[in-house]
Amino acid sequence: MNTHPMTKVTIVCEAFARESVLRLVESVGAHGYTLFAVEGSGARGVRPADIQEFSNIQVEVILQPPAAEQLLHRLQSELFAKYAMVAYASEIQVLRPSKF
Amino acid sequence: MNTHPMTKVTIVCEAFARESVLRLVESVGAHGYTLFAVEGSGARGVRPADIQEFSNIQVEVILQPPAAEQLLHRLQSELFAKYAMVAYASEIQVLRPSKF
Amino acid sequence: MNTHPMTKVTIVCEAFARESVLRLVESVGAHGYTLFAVEGSGARGVRPADIQEFSNIQVEVILQPPAAEQLLHRLQSELFAKYAMVAYASEIQVLRPSKF
Repeated sequence: MNTHPMTKVTIVCEAFARESVLRLVESVGAHGYTLFAVEGSGARGVRPADIQEFSNIQVEVILQPPAAEQLLHRLQSELFAKYAMVAYASEIQVLRPSKF
Repeated sequence: MNTHPMTKVTIVCEAFARESVLRLVESVGAHGYTLFAVEGSGARGVRPADIQEFSNIQVEVILQPPAAEQLLHRLQSELFAKYAMVAYASEIQVLRPSKF
Repeated sequence: MNTHPMTKVTIVCEAFARESVLRLVESVGAHGYTLFAVEGSGARGVRPADIQEFSNIQVEVILQPPAAEQLLHRLQSELFAKYAMVAYASEIQVLRPSKF
């Protein structure tokens, strides 16, 4: 089994931040992402998924560790002050690393 | 990059357990969560997401490790006998730990 | 707290692959899974979740490590050539391992 260690970066943010987040994701060299709507509560209150303008999204991106580091750094320096947002990294083992 | 080790607790359960789970999540001191509908099959059979009354939800909560331990313990002792439910923990590295 | 190390296998694929993936998941002995629709972009372009025929799904399966290894191997040998698909494994700590 050829699996390769990669980093998954998960970003939970208000839907309003979508374009800014995806631009950053693309700019660090990600070859893909998944995105889905979530309900959630956080520092700015409960955000029901069925009210589109207040909904949150969860974006998951698989990256080589240095690119993941770069994405987290840029989220912090460029977007954290502007949007309700949480970001975290986790280690995964990936098949077909050539896709990333 | 200032990331901090935290624990993500994931709870997959029948939608009917929602209020009980969120009360527990709040009572262990979580500052937020995400929640989304999932289809799934498990011990009690396939649960399609488009039939609301039989749907499952996936709740994800980021906690300091001791609070995560407490949440898992209380899920087991207070809710596992009542609801179809699976819970697990994973290690993550979080930006902005002051939010948790 | 009795938690047990297990492997979570996550599969992101085009919705068209759903039945093939779930058959494989079942055949390696999984007792359950969760499945939800995601938007995503990848090698074959952006796939919006609101266009059903082009949507992606994310399937998550909790398995004993050898069964996870078997699932990844069979995804690679049987389905990767046919479908747009990414698969990865992560380590989790599970309550109620008897369910898996």
